[in-house]
Amino acid sequence: MDNWIKKQATLAGSRTAITDGKQSLTFAQLAKRSDQLANKLNDLSALNNQRVAILTNNSVAGYLIAMAVLNSGHTIIWLNRRLSATELNYQLADSQVDVCLYEDRLNVSELKCRTISFSEVNFASEKALPKHLEFDLETAASVMYTSGTTGRPKGVIQTFGNHFNSAMASALNLGVTSADEWICTVPIFHISGFSIMMRGLIYGMTVRLVSNFDEEEIHQILVKEPITMISVVPYMLKKLLAIKQKTGDTYNEKFRGMLLGGGPIDQETLQQCEKMQLPVVQSYGMTETCSQIVALSFSDAQRHIGSSGKPLFLTQLRLDEKTSEIQLKTPALSPGYLGQPEKYATKITVDGWFKTGDVGRLDAEGFLYVDGRSDDMIISGGENIFPDEVQAAYAQCPFVSDIAVVGVADDKWQQKPVAFVIPNEQTLLAKDLSDYGRQRLAHYKVPKNFYLINEFPHNASGKLQRFKLREMLDKNEVNELQ
Amino acid sequence: MDNWIKKQATLAGSRTAITDGKQSLTFAQLAKRSDQLANKLNDLSALNNQRVAILTNNSVAGYLIAMAVLNSGHTIIWLNRRLSATELNYQLADSQVDVCLYEDRLNVSELKCRTISFSEVNFASEKALPKHLEFDLETAASVMYTSGTTGRPKGVIQTFGNHFNSAMASALNLGVTSADEWICTVPIFHISGFSIMMRGLIYGMTVRLVSNFDEEEIHQILVKEPITMISVVPYMLKKLLAIKQKTGDTYNEKFRGMLLGGGPIDQETLQQCEKMQLPVVQSYGMTETCSQIVALSFSDAQRHIGSSGKPLFLTQLRLDEKTSEIQLKTPALSPGYLGQPEKYATKITVDGWFKTGDVGRLDAEGFLYVDGRSDDMIISGGENIFPDEVQAAYAQCPFVSDIAVVGVADDKWQQKPVAFVIPNEQTLLAKDLSDYGRQRLAHYKVPKNFYLINEFPHNASGKLQRFKLREMLDKNEVNELQ
Repeated sequence: MDNWIKKQATLAGSRTAITDGKQSLTFAQLAKRSDQLANKLNDLSALNNQRVAILTNNSVAGYLIAMAVLNSGHTIIWLNRRLSATELNYQLADSQVDVCLYEDRLNVSELKCRTISFSEVNFASEKALPKHLEFDLETAASVMYTSGTTGRPKGVIQTFGNHFNSAMASALNLGVTSADEWICTVPIFHISGFSIMMRGLIYGMTVRLVSNFDEEEIHQILVKEPITMISVVPYMLKKLLAIKQKTGDTYNEKFRGMLLGGGPIDQETLQQCEKMQLPVVQSYGMTETCSQIVALSFSDAQRHIGSSGKPLFLTQLRLDEKTSEIQLKTPALSPGYLGQPEKYATKITVDGWFKTGDVGRLDAEGFLYVDGRSDDMIISGGENIFPDEVQAAYAQCPFVSDIAVVGVADDKWQQKPVAFVIPNEQTLLAKDLSDYGRQRLAHYKVPKNFYLINEFPHNASGKLQRFKLREMLDKNEVNELQ
Repeated sequence: MDNWIKKQATLAGSRTAITDGKQSLTFAQLAKRSDQLANKLNDLSALNNQRVAILTNNSVAGYLIAMAVLNSGHTIIWLNRRLSATELNYQLADSQVDVCLYEDRLNVSELKCRTISFSEVNFASEKALPKHLEFDLETAASVMYTSGTTGRPKGVIQTFGNHFNSAMASALNLGVTSADEWICTVPIFHISGFSIMMRGLIYGMTVRLVSNFDEEEIHQILVKEPITMISVVPYMLKKLLAIKQKTGDTYNEKFRGMLLGGGPIDQETLQQCEKMQLPVVQSYGMTETCSQIVALSFSDAQRHIGSSGKPLFLTQLRLDEKTSEIQLKTPALSPGYLGQPEKYATKITVDGWFKTGDVGRLDAEGFLYVDGRSDDMIISGGENIFPDEVQAAYAQCPFVSDIAVVGVADDKWQQKPVAFVIPNEQTLLAKDLSDYGRQRLAHYKVPKNFYLINEFPHNASGKLQRFKLREMLDKNEVNELQ
């Protein structure tokens, strides 16, 4: 296919591609600017490697750098700015990246590769690159790391074809019109955010970028600007709903709906949304599938509380007969994990279906209910947390002889990680353990509470029984470390 | 991918799939009915061959039979009901079909294969077929014959992937919403009509089927029913425009536009459309590309009179440097001609571009102007006519010693075929030649006028100079045979 950036410059040249409310670029300007930036990166010898890492907040500068990397035919390694230096260095080494481009105000002092700030790029000279005229659907556009239950984090490869098919599936589900404008308040280094950028390129649609989720600001934007769609996770939805209820404001007349990821919403919230005429499309997806692959329309939601909806037009879905694991086929499915084909192979069934690791049910009408992770993944505020990864970070901790992490329900974040510990010393404080974790893990991964335990519940084959830990909590059988 | 018919039964089961204004079926009913019909076809042993021919008008019965054939995993050979028995028999033999399913009121007495009427199918018993659960994107969904300039007609293979990508390109160009309803008055055995059926399946959209183009009827439908889109050729557009001007009627409030194929419209018509607030999207496409691949939005039309528009998001287009031939790449491109790989190979350049045979220009902004067929194809009322094919039909005609066919402008049909003849007898009448042609050719292909000539103009290498024939006509230098 034609290079999408250049294509939209000819198809929708005068339409706004990106705006943060102050700074705006049309698709024609985007094409020009990303050509220039690619030439500057070339002048800095930052494009010698096929892969280039980007560490940024949601900003027009970060968006433009990402577009420049794609425009020059390179692959973006998306770094999560909330990760620790240790975690990031692992990803930089694993992806064999030699350059990390970063937003100026972020701290990269501990990163073990060449780092180039966005201002350095801007101040560089231009050294003309050969024009990259085509986007090959089989080529990796982006890589995003996800932690697994076992072993090291995996770089999920997302091809241009994956992004294209994901955008098509979304268009068939949510519709697409020339008036569409999608607000991106979720991180652009996550698939939820980056998929909005890619839809923008594919639809020729305006992306309204917001740096942080500030519910008052987003609310005002939804009221005053011609936004049609917004992607949210449950805690964002609840905050926006609360303001809408308080103010009684109506969103702008073009507003079409909220795409909700990160788990279904409860009946009460749904009813309040209905009362406030706030159409919510619940969805289910993952980094490996380039965003949503199952969705629940607002009109079906009341009759199917707790469901994630129906598999989209491009999604084939089945449940494993024995384990009820959700398995699927979709052209939006990642072709593999960077450098770990053997790991990816374990995720594919003999007859070619992708094993999500999630357990689910289908009702008679074909609506999917996701019952949880077979591997105990915790979803907190839209971020995935794998208990085994958190436990591994504490493996060498001198304060505890053993630790087990589980997710528990949380009003604000849907779920939060908490830990059960067998302490090594009497005077241990929760703060010590928390500080220890914060030096090694993204803050959101650090357990919010620590509970004392003498012995961990295991089954006959020695596997930790996390459900028993949760039962102890529910029954108040454990003491919290202060 | 999942079988589209079954998929829409789960995604949009209660939505209307097809209606002719009297008879309507939801997607759930369509899935059930096409399962039944496939079982009936199986009972009649009509599915022994992978390919099944269908001869029908635009009717719900014909639509259902087509859906049953797709639903059972078979390929439709679409027959054009306007062709002569000789032409159809060629196609039946070429596609190695052993069964032709036909609408009861059509005459199939001269067809040389087993023929089964739609009522025979309906009255058959059901013999359960194994469920065909997936549509493979690489598999042929349909075959449509196009005549070429040389040699025999070619069966253009259209895969499920071709249809899918064509529908996606159309969605990105025209938008897609859950309110969409497309009226199909163009023949379903042409790509213009069948592509509407396929979009219906892919979008979960209602197709409003009309048997014949009756401008009064279509006008009333556009006024009274919630139609959003209509596909037309120029003469249809002009007739609908005239009624709109006469009555001053407004179409229903959901109406979004007309998709025009078969050549650009003139400035005057365009201005009248603008005055009547009739949004027309001009387009360019062919059987080999599964419908439109270039389109001109209404907002661009006034500044680019005569243009076919810009290559759609999925279309890569270039002009041959020497010949200005339009060449393209698109995932909607047919993988080949049935049984004629050598013929298809001549249509592909060494670097993999499809040679359309059309000559064109691109302006500075990237708008395409199609200047004509390099091979003198005539487009008359939306039907393609190849002069060489018409000439070949007269090759054995005892009344003339030679004949040459050219297309000339026509108020009603855009173009019409006319012939220049060197007669063998003094008393020859135009009617004799016309009757001769009508026995061997579809009626629309028979020359509308016959002109007397003594000698044909040829260039140095002996090639017929059709432009000189047209000049003679313009200058009134020839006498018409009465």
